[in-house]
Amino acid sequence: MNRAFFAALESIYPPQRLLTRDVELLPYESDALTAFSAKPGAVVLPVNEAEIVDTVRLCHDHAVPFVARGSGTSLSGGSLPIPEGLTIGLNRLNRIKKLDPQQRIAVVEPGVINLSISEAAQPYGLYYAPDPSSQSICTIGGNIAFNSGGAHCLKYGMTSNHVLGMKVVLADGTVTKFGSESVEGVGIGPDLIGLFVGSEGLFGIALEITVRLMPQPEVYRTVLAAYDDLGRAGDAVSMVVASGLLPGAMEIMDRLAIEAAEASVKAGYPDAEALLIVELEGESIQVNTEFERLQGIIQQSGAFELRVAESEAERTRIWKGRKGAFSAVGRLSPDYIVQDGVVPRSRLGEALLAINALKVKYGLEVANVFHAGDGNLHPLILYDGRAVGALEKAEALAGEILALCINLGGSITGEHGVGMEKRDYLPAMFSEEEIDIMQALRRSIDPREIANRGKMFPGGEAPALKLQGLHPLEKAGVISRE
Amino acid sequence: MNRAFFAALESIYPPQRLLTRDVELLPYESDALTAFSAKPGAVVLPVNEAEIVDTVRLCHDHAVPFVARGSGTSLSGGSLPIPEGLTIGLNRLNRIKKLDPQQRIAVVEPGVINLSISEAAQPYGLYYAPDPSSQSICTIGGNIAFNSGGAHCLKYGMTSNHVLGMKVVLADGTVTKFGSESVEGVGIGPDLIGLFVGSEGLFGIALEITVRLMPQPEVYRTVLAAYDDLGRAGDAVSMVVASGLLPGAMEIMDRLAIEAAEASVKAGYPDAEALLIVELEGESIQVNTEFERLQGIIQQSGAFELRVAESEAERTRIWKGRKGAFSAVGRLSPDYIVQDGVVPRSRLGEALLAINALKVKYGLEVANVFHAGDGNLHPLILYDGRAVGALEKAEALAGEILALCINLGGSITGEHGVGMEKRDYLPAMFSEEEIDIMQALRRSIDPREIANRGKMFPGGEAPALKLQGLHPLEKAGVISRE
Repeated sequence: MNRAFFAALESIYPPQRLLTRDVELLPYESDALTAFSAKPGAVVLPVNEAEIVDTVRLCHDHAVPFVARGSGTSLSGGSLPIPEGLTIGLNRLNRIKKLDPQQRIAVVEPGVINLSISEAAQPYGLYYAPDPSSQSICTIGGNIAFNSGGAHCLKYGMTSNHVLGMKVVLADGTVTKFGSESVEGVGIGPDLIGLFVGSEGLFGIALEITVRLMPQPEVYRTVLAAYDDLGRAGDAVSMVVASGLLPGAMEIMDRLAIEAAEASVKAGYPDAEALLIVELEGESIQVNTEFERLQGIIQQSGAFELRVAESEAERTRIWKGRKGAFSAVGRLSPDYIVQDGVVPRSRLGEALLAINALKVKYGLEVANVFHAGDGNLHPLILYDGRAVGALEKAEALAGEILALCINLGGSITGEHGVGMEKRDYLPAMFSEEEIDIMQALRRSIDPREIANRGKMFPGGEAPALKLQGLHPLEKAGVISRE
Repeated sequence: MNRAFFAALESIYPPQRLLTRDVELLPYESDALTAFSAKPGAVVLPVNEAEIVDTVRLCHDHAVPFVARGSGTSLSGGSLPIPEGLTIGLNRLNRIKKLDPQQRIAVVEPGVINLSISEAAQPYGLYYAPDPSSQSICTIGGNIAFNSGGAHCLKYGMTSNHVLGMKVVLADGTVTKFGSESVEGVGIGPDLIGLFVGSEGLFGIALEITVRLMPQPEVYRTVLAAYDDLGRAGDAVSMVVASGLLPGAMEIMDRLAIEAAEASVKAGYPDAEALLIVELEGESIQVNTEFERLQGIIQQSGAFELRVAESEAERTRIWKGRKGAFSAVGRLSPDYIVQDGVVPRSRLGEALLAINALKVKYGLEVANVFHAGDGNLHPLILYDGRAVGALEKAEALAGEILALCINLGGSITGEHGVGMEKRDYLPAMFSEEEIDIMQALRRSIDPREIANRGKMFPGGEAPALKLQGLHPLEKAGVISRE
């Protein structure tokens, strides 16, 4: 950042919204992937669209890299500062600008909290479907960058399935709109919304987002099935999928996760090796029939107990345990790594058995809490960072889990994204040609590569990391730097 | 096409698959938008992937523009030859390479007929959902280029929602894969499949496509509602949408279309001003409840008759009338133009009244047959091309209908695409910035702009056209060349 750039920033922002002192920058040095940290050159806190656009144009003119940041809940280091770059904090752009119950849309600013949309839509019997576990804190701008999913995305899809239109500022300062404000406005030309959603901030910043609202289901039926074997719970999910039933959500927690959630949230979970949560939703008569079929499958799958939530309070309690499981597990151990991988749903049982074997091999505890219906695993690997070599061991185990996902025909990330954490793993999933195409597309919009520089693609400058040494996938023999 | 290029083509293709004589080229001079025609420099008919790749590389090296062609059913001139360019006919690549009922996927070559996939999947209780009216002849490669929809896309989405993976050759000769072979492999980085599907051949040619198969619904309930007023049928659709019901299909035909279909297919349609076809699908108990609600809505909407298909034969007959309506209308008139526009579903009644007024204004017959559930209008404007000025009048009316769609907040094309027909209309839908972005993305993949050159974007070289004069949207005052 040179003097001219900085002077120009000062002409846009008053001192209290232009942070440069170490003590002010500290809260922005990491996101939810706390193993990584980096110091930004400065943080700005715009309060309106014009300030964002002016800032991006300034960055473009001076070739200063920038990253947008919402609530900083990225689990892949997606909003990690770029060393000596600019962090643009968007939390103050948190207005719901329009909510049209007739057209079933909401138009929101990027700093709006995910859950706030559903809260605003609730009086009209509508809601916003994608529900990351962090939905009470994460912002819609971040959801767009990472195409966020959540427990209830099984039936209705991820963020990309719910964004109808966007106003964006591209990395070169161009302001434009993609998509439309109605569900009918689809289908012409290349899908620019699809290109932008999930691109991890590489093309620019969303200034305004039009999302689809859905009618709240008439009824929910939330079922808890308890197993004395984790693999069997995984098999039950494959059986449900094969039967053609499409629940709103299917989640699995293993013993460690159950115990942690119990100790923390008191969800009233049964004592079991594995718990399967299945939620049916829709019209009551349909849910009743589906429930009968589901009951049959769960009995057949060898569950030793089946509970049904008898009230909305009980349903809330079940979900509170599941959604609070990550932080609850954090209380069991000084440190943990959350891994995010995907396996075909037909191979869930197999994957869980293999993870169990890896636990034994490394002598580490692993808690499993995951979106089973999507085949999206979230093993939490517990370790004590104070012990010499403990982090390396945990990382090696995490790498073996990713290698396992790839070998089973899955993917290295279901919803947390590539970000900083997995940028060197990209070649394990994509061919050189594919990565070249992504880079070519990116450069066609951002020739100076200033938008979230250093993320997603392998081989960028190394940021200030707490992690060192070989990448876990290198240790597992899946990728090589040679 | 220079000698060296041609000699290289001869080294790839035997004479019977390298067409150059006028009589051989004639069938390729137009697609289903017969008002346009152009003569290609040559047509090649590859029989395998390697030949396609070699041909594209050759075109790239010699900067010869090319267009891929399946069955030539494009209604927007999307597969119209590029004058002196190469047409690559893909009909011979028509193998279903894999059909996996467990994973519910099929892997197909680009020349596979849409309906063939469902036929192959039928023994496993599966089908391929997108069903353009031309599904018994159009190819999956063309469906990809234009993100094709169909009557049953209301519930399950267009082609882009059903393509999981692709192997493509890009315009610069790079061969790569996008996506994956499983429904779980989603969500990393920019959506390259979304970029390619609907891009009208501007990025390259799909060599192999992995599509999602869906379980056939347990039951269908097909309902015919007859109205003595077209606007009322449109309002009924808005009411169904507002009620939250999501039928598999909702189609409207007006009197002229009904009479044409009756004369041609003998579908047994009632004598009415408008017919609404609604098809419910799913599990029988659910369909029964939905049917009760639908019945209530249709009665309330003022239908004078409501019929339910009592057998599969009757259902087939109802659909045969609808799907054959376009060609049936063709028998009423020497020539017709099919327009393709979209209006918000809440404004269907209004749009239909306005089209009626335009009919009177121009003194032309218009038959309305359309995907009402998507707000996707397909007015067929009848004219006699032998009469002086008749085509111009029909085109002016078509232009006013598009202007109407834009004014009501809709779109200039629902599923037929931009192609050659609507390239000069693009600025009426997209901002300069958006078009620049599309062009930049395109050039990042195809710097020589050889893939389907002259289509989609305004201002290309004029091809050999039968149409002359002002564009209909210019006449309607929506766009201007000044």
